[in-house]
Amino acid sequence: MKQLQTEIKEFIARRNWKQYHSPKNLVMALSVEAAELTEIFQWMTQEESRNVTKETRSHIEEEIGDIMIYLSTVAAAFDIDPISAARKKLVKNAIKYPAPKELSDDGNLT
Amino acid sequence: MKQLQTEIKEFIARRNWKQYHSPKNLVMALSVEAAELTEIFQWMTQEESRNVTKETRSHIEEEIGDIMIYLSTVAAAFDIDPISAARKKLVKNAIKYPAPKELSDDGNLT
Amino acid sequence: MKQLQTEIKEFIARRNWKQYHSPKNLVMALSVEAAELTEIFQWMTQEESRNVTKETRSHIEEEIGDIMIYLSTVAAAFDIDPISAARKKLVKNAIKYPAPKELSDDGNLT
Amino acid sequence: MKQLQTEIKEFIARRNWKQYHSPKNLVMALSVEAAELTEIFQWMTQEESRNVTKETRSHIEEEIGDIMIYLSTVAAAFDIDPISAARKKLVKNAIKYPAPKELSDDGNLT
Repeated sequence: MKQLQTEIKEFIARRNWKQYHSPKNLVMALSVEAAELTEIFQWMTQEESRNVTKETRSHIEEEIGDIMIYLSTVAAAFDIDPISAARKKLVKNAIKYPAPKELSDDGNLT
Repeated sequence: MKQLQTEIKEFIARRNWKQYHSPKNLVMALSVEAAELTEIFQWMTQEESRNVTKETRSHIEEEIGDIMIYLSTVAAAFDIDPISAARKKLVKNAIKYPAPKELSDDGNLT
Repeated sequence: MKQLQTEIKEFIARRNWKQYHSPKNLVMALSVEAAELTEIFQWMTQEESRNVTKETRSHIEEEIGDIMIYLSTVAAAFDIDPISAARKKLVKNAIKYPAPKELSDDGNLT
Repeated sequence: MKQLQTEIKEFIARRNWKQYHSPKNLVMALSVEAAELTEIFQWMTQEESRNVTKETRSHIEEEIGDIMIYLSTVAAAFDIDPISAARKKLVKNAIKYPAPKELSDDGNLT
């Protein structure tokens, strides 16, 4: 993750794009990329979205790449690691949405 | 990254949410989370977006966490690693948008 | 439509919000409202989205109202009427996506 | 407005697209169009967004047209008029965000 953020930083610096990259602009770009991923799925049924062609999968991979680039760049502007942020949020969500108690093999609640 | 995707998978399985998690639904959820990040910045100037309070930074971190969770979950559905996808895309972008030639310290093109 | 745009203009002026309403900010707000509409449908099947409760319909109506307010406000900033813009676009789309020839009742192509 | 909704309905029927137009799909398409409008403004300053070229204005008009088409189509699926919905929401917002009392020319509160 750190390495990706460094590579992106270099990519931007070499093109002198830093001037455009306020967090406000970056989140706009992120939302545009998220919509490009949405566009792939908009007319599919849910079933179709689970069974895509190899070409569509490549397209999905590219859009996920774009989203990840902007997400990492916004995050870096605030010295945030997206993966740590996700793990922190999972812990929080686990409290907010407690998992149902499960029955063990002998029928007792675990 | 792999570890995050495993943790998310477990989180979803324990809550029996897999049934809702078609890629189509997941990209909708991803775009909603991207908008929640956008909402934080919508009335800010670009300058303000570079200088946020500690409270706003926490809020940003949470939304980045949410986006990362859904991005990882969509990606996992297609056996894609978002970080690898981002690095592949960076290479592609470097060809599409070549960096200007730079002068080294001695004035020669690098 | 003109009347709606006038009412919105007054609403904004009385609250002294014009300063925040650059087109850039307004499109961000519009995309956030579009996401709030998306959120209502994200976990529904397509069938469920066709058969919503009365409460959900009210919620949908409110979000459509919000989107329409921001769409009208952005449009007004460029002296555009959204309805005329939609009708112009329909004509353009009709050329881009020609309707298949239809058989009339006597079996001839119309 | 009614006329626009009728024109769109006909446009869709002639192309046999109704099968794809569940409300769920339509809101996805709406959010994608909103992002295409966002894309125009993402790297602009707020000042630039207030002073666009004639070509950019045409582009903006097309995207507003697309958004209006999908907004009208979603709304029609629930028998909602977007303009009435906007006016209802304005009334609600006026209560939620009361306008500050204003001084009249003679210095009294109005």
